Amino acid sequence: MSTTTGGAGVPRTMRASVLVAKGEIRIEERPVPVPAEDDVLIDVASVGVCGSDVHYYREGRIGDFVVDAPLVLGHEACGRIVAVGARVPDARIGERVAIEPQRPCRVCRQCTAGRYNLCPAMEFYATPPVDGAFQEYVTIQAPFAHPVPDSVSDDAAALLEPLSVAVSANRKAEVGPGSRVLIAGAGPVGMLTARTALAFGAAEVLVSDPMPERRARAARYGATAALDPATDAVAGLDVDAFIDCSGAPPAVRSGIAAVRGAGTVVLVGMGADEVPMPLPVIQRHELTVTGVFRYTDTWPLATHLAASGQVDPAALVTARFDLDHTADALDADRTPGSLKAVVRP
Amino acid sequence: MSTTTGGAGVPRTMRASVLVAKGEIRIEERPVPVPAEDDVLIDVASVGVCGSDVHYYREGRIGDFVVDAPLVLGHEACGRIVAVGARVPDARIGERVAIEPQRPCRVCRQCTAGRYNLCPAMEFYATPPVDGAFQEYVTIQAPFAHPVPDSVSDDAAALLEPLSVAVSANRKAEVGPGSRVLIAGAGPVGMLTARTALAFGAAEVLVSDPMPERRARAARYGATAALDPATDAVAGLDVDAFIDCSGAPPAVRSGIAAVRGAGTVVLVGMGADEVPMPLPVIQRHELTVTGVFRYTDTWPLATHLAASGQVDPAALVTARFDLDHTADALDADRTPGSLKAVVRP
Amino acid sequence: MSTTTGGAGVPRTMRASVLVAKGEIRIEERPVPVPAEDDVLIDVASVGVCGSDVHYYREGRIGDFVVDAPLVLGHEACGRIVAVGARVPDARIGERVAIEPQRPCRVCRQCTAGRYNLCPAMEFYATPPVDGAFQEYVTIQAPFAHPVPDSVSDDAAALLEPLSVAVSANRKAEVGPGSRVLIAGAGPVGMLTARTALAFGAAEVLVSDPMPERRARAARYGATAALDPATDAVAGLDVDAFIDCSGAPPAVRSGIAAVRGAGTVVLVGMGADEVPMPLPVIQRHELTVTGVFRYTDTWPLATHLAASGQVDPAALVTARFDLDHTADALDADRTPGSLKAVVRP
Amino acid sequence: MSTTTGGAGVPRTMRASVLVAKGEIRIEERPVPVPAEDDVLIDVASVGVCGSDVHYYREGRIGDFVVDAPLVLGHEACGRIVAVGARVPDARIGERVAIEPQRPCRVCRQCTAGRYNLCPAMEFYATPPVDGAFQEYVTIQAPFAHPVPDSVSDDAAALLEPLSVAVSANRKAEVGPGSRVLIAGAGPVGMLTARTALAFGAAEVLVSDPMPERRARAARYGATAALDPATDAVAGLDVDAFIDCSGAPPAVRSGIAAVRGAGTVVLVGMGADEVPMPLPVIQRHELTVTGVFRYTDTWPLATHLAASGQVDPAALVTARFDLDHTADALDADRTPGSLKAVVRP
Repeated sequence: MSTTTGGAGVPRTMRASVLVAKGEIRIEERPVPVPAEDDVLIDVASVGVCGSDVHYYREGRIGDFVVDAPLVLGHEACGRIVAVGARVPDARIGERVAIEPQRPCRVCRQCTAGRYNLCPAMEFYATPPVDGAFQEYVTIQAPFAHPVPDSVSDDAAALLEPLSVAVSANRKAEVGPGSRVLIAGAGPVGMLTARTALAFGAAEVLVSDPMPERRARAARYGATAALDPATDAVAGLDVDAFIDCSGAPPAVRSGIAAVRGAGTVVLVGMGADEVPMPLPVIQRHELTVTGVFRYTDTWPLATHLAASGQVDPAALVTARFDLDHTADALDADRTPGSLKAVVRP
Repeated sequence: MSTTTGGAGVPRTMRASVLVAKGEIRIEERPVPVPAEDDVLIDVASVGVCGSDVHYYREGRIGDFVVDAPLVLGHEACGRIVAVGARVPDARIGERVAIEPQRPCRVCRQCTAGRYNLCPAMEFYATPPVDGAFQEYVTIQAPFAHPVPDSVSDDAAALLEPLSVAVSANRKAEVGPGSRVLIAGAGPVGMLTARTALAFGAAEVLVSDPMPERRARAARYGATAALDPATDAVAGLDVDAFIDCSGAPPAVRSGIAAVRGAGTVVLVGMGADEVPMPLPVIQRHELTVTGVFRYTDTWPLATHLAASGQVDPAALVTARFDLDHTADALDADRTPGSLKAVVRP
Repeated sequence: MSTTTGGAGVPRTMRASVLVAKGEIRIEERPVPVPAEDDVLIDVASVGVCGSDVHYYREGRIGDFVVDAPLVLGHEACGRIVAVGARVPDARIGERVAIEPQRPCRVCRQCTAGRYNLCPAMEFYATPPVDGAFQEYVTIQAPFAHPVPDSVSDDAAALLEPLSVAVSANRKAEVGPGSRVLIAGAGPVGMLTARTALAFGAAEVLVSDPMPERRARAARYGATAALDPATDAVAGLDVDAFIDCSGAPPAVRSGIAAVRGAGTVVLVGMGADEVPMPLPVIQRHELTVTGVFRYTDTWPLATHLAASGQVDPAALVTARFDLDHTADALDADRTPGSLKAVVRP
Repeated sequence: MSTTTGGAGVPRTMRASVLVAKGEIRIEERPVPVPAEDDVLIDVASVGVCGSDVHYYREGRIGDFVVDAPLVLGHEACGRIVAVGARVPDARIGERVAIEPQRPCRVCRQCTAGRYNLCPAMEFYATPPVDGAFQEYVTIQAPFAHPVPDSVSDDAAALLEPLSVAVSANRKAEVGPGSRVLIAGAGPVGMLTARTALAFGAAEVLVSDPMPERRARAARYGATAALDPATDAVAGLDVDAFIDCSGAPPAVRSGIAAVRGAGTVVLVGMGADEVPMPLPVIQRHELTVTGVFRYTDTWPLATHLAASGQVDPAALVTARFDLDHTADALDADRTPGSLKAVVRP
């Protein structure tokens, strides 16, 4: 462990938490990755557990993405740059960074059009066969290692990733000053989306969730009202935008009925492959229904929102684990009251 | 019949073709309508039969709109101005005009935002309880009596209405130079949408329809290719936009699979109240799904398209009827090869 | 004074402050206006003095608009509805409202496209030959009498008009979360624009003004930095947007040099008829240069910003006058430290 | 000349036409460039002469770009791929391609936002110190070697570059079906912009130019009317867009007066550093003034326009030269009637 790959003090090998089979995580000793010429090497500080990690862990697949070889999970990550590739200035060594965990090709038509999140050649952390961040070191292209100020904690820096989803959702929903927004689902992304909507100037942010304690938490975190889908009708609320962070078909359908003419529906949560949808409502009201898939150019704004105190992503963390307890972190959602677990390698 | 309402030669009464009960059309003698101060009175020349007219005629309702009192159908109309309201210049008398058959309130937030088609107080021809144009005279607000040049025939002028739907659909679909577009359904609106897509600069206009003779007609009318949904897979075509003019759930679902990332889906056809939709596809590809409901500011462009010969709406007409045969016109779709019937009062 | 025009207690005549010649204001007794069928009659509570009022008062013209007949100035106004036209619900009588002081035609292509501020047939308060609000009663179309909650004071309600300009400017400048904005000119509109930029989520709001006391006031009111154009270079600041509220040619030219590639320049202030502009900079950086002329659909948001405390327009008021002292109000800008005068009829 | 750099038959050295001093072109024998791993090597077939080439040749500089070392001019180029870098499929060898002559960094915020033309680290052909295409072989990144069908001639393929400028200009001007467009300047870019406007669906394309033979040519090439600025007033034409391809200050100023409220002004031509501009007109009419700097994602559409016969860029060519006569090509504009020269290495 005395030889370095580029920066002083970087060991040759590291510990990685590897999904070796459905439901089975094993700690392995692996070579520290070597940064390519445009990459940086990052000593990982904190990694959030996402629902997709849990899904891969428990089911071994998400849709067409199948884990058929050992895979390191985790894509909500931050750390400190400890080595750089040949074309990256040495001055970046030592920088605290949040990781935008994607490697687009940068030259296809989606990339050159500014939609690199839709790059068909994308390599994304923790998506088979690309390893993620539940390990001591990771690499990423230098521009996607986004500097974070000291005022943003490690956990907050890691959670700039789900905050980026929330930023994307609010952009797609065209939330702006005075907007009235309905959000279904008070999980981590729903909470961040609600809080971000406020930061975008929304006048009303209505969060619906069937669980009372989640509604209560949403109200504390920023929702201007928390609705119970069992008792509070949303049809006719006439909101400007509805953002689904639940993936629940009834929430999607009733949310659509809540939107004013020419309003917007944004699908964030993933749910069933097919959902019966009220197409005549979409057509007659000329609604815009779209989805958010990851993000483009969100870290600078997410960092600003966190650094300025407008959104505190670390407030969502309900449990912390070390690398040896990654499996526990992946099961943390089974603890009542759990919202967000982080692994600190 | 010797007294006029404002213009010389306008009689006091007129003949109107009235839907008095489901499936029953009766010719009635009615007072000629009196134009309000901002209105013009039009001597109707030609009126297209729309699928919605047929639906009201046969079913007595469309969704929530129920025909519970006698109703004059017909909303695709043109004619000649024969009298004007107090605030309309006399000079307009004699003008040949196509009718934009809607009366929005003009002051609500939808109207003032430029989306008057979504005005909740809209009065629309042939939509209960507002009478339509299967009668000798109609009124409309002066700015919605759009002048047409002599090069546009009466039938073409009437059919600027469905052409307006086609224009709206192409605008919503963001069809432009070089676009690749898939259109489902080769009925009148699908045909006009295809031809308009070409006029918008589309490089490829693929029309799918299950009926061979409709595919053949679409190919003659402007489609660059005509697809048989039974044998031609559209998934993966990677078109920029899919416009559904069929209302058929399988067409909608397969069309969505044909669209490239960040592409657009526009619902024009009306079909089932609920359709199972592949929400994860919409989400992951960040598609935009929206609908077209009538139109705003389309007549000037539709008139230009027809006058310049880029789109010939009259070419769709397969049968013409006088007012006494309105019921036959409404049943014309039962004749094999029928595409569009017009009534000439 | 015992007979009313519609509401109980509305007199037949009222006092109006009339510009009868350049520099000469006279109080006249005039008939109380009668609301047309879509209008409301408003008992005026507070009216802000705008730079354009002062310009008409001192110069007798603004560009092509010449005061060649007696004119009532004042277009930043609020009050209480005391009577309504035939088509307006009586229930609106008694409502406190802010006035959107324009009457567009509502049917031209600009109006129907949602740009009613550009209506060529516009009738606008205090713009020859249309009288404004320096009088006891005014009329406006009912939808442009915008209700205000009690939490918004009379002065604040009147100043929703310049706040509307600020809202328009920020919309045109596409100010949003994280934006960096440069604003030239710390007069009332510049101050409101700065404060509104914060409400729109701007991360940095830089206000430049040559006068130290105005810079200090801007910094207190919301600017994140106040710049002295004599000593602080703005070229290369790389802001997302530059909003000119100064009308000063050097400010416009240097502001343009401060904008990042593809950024936005919005002209709010009116200045010289021709200004030498660095066109190659606009071209090479593909800047968007545009202007704000009045507003569309801004009162609901302006009301929200004021009612929620995000922007306090009344804080700008430095002097209040009664109708008899309208001339003094128009000259209030000659008092050192003056920012905004209001007249309370 | 027998050894190749990668493809069979590629020599080691080549002939290049080099600007060695202001006004002095010399043919030099230079090494054939070696494609980097993402590059292709192209055997150049045709290169258009652009006004900027002429400007560098005669003045030795364009604004801040100074030719202070030998430079190969020419950036409108096409040819055939004869060798490829390590990461480019061999299958591309032999392909006829048009060259998008820019190398953006692909990772800065302009690049990732889809505005790679504004990349501050751009390397652009024939812009100091980057060599251009007046030589036998050039390299470019593989995705910017755009395949062209046989139906597009070599000269047309080279001139897809100025056609790309025309496409960008029409996009920025939001030209679409039914648009009315005014274009100042009937040089090559003005002509292509006019013809492209028609392809974008414009109903009226008015081209103004002071020279009668250029007006006549513009009318033959696609303008619906050709205007003489000396006698035809354009103010009040009320066009939707004005595109300046002249760089002439009077044309810019009068063009602005021709635009309808909320219309668009696009600056393409480069002229004086400062031009007196009617800012109150821009402000009151809320015009959008912007510029076109090169292009993003235009070759596919330009290729379609040329291949479909909608625009024939080769029709602009008035003279052809071999590499030895590059200086003559650069002076071809001195021949009366000259419009576009090409060099065929």
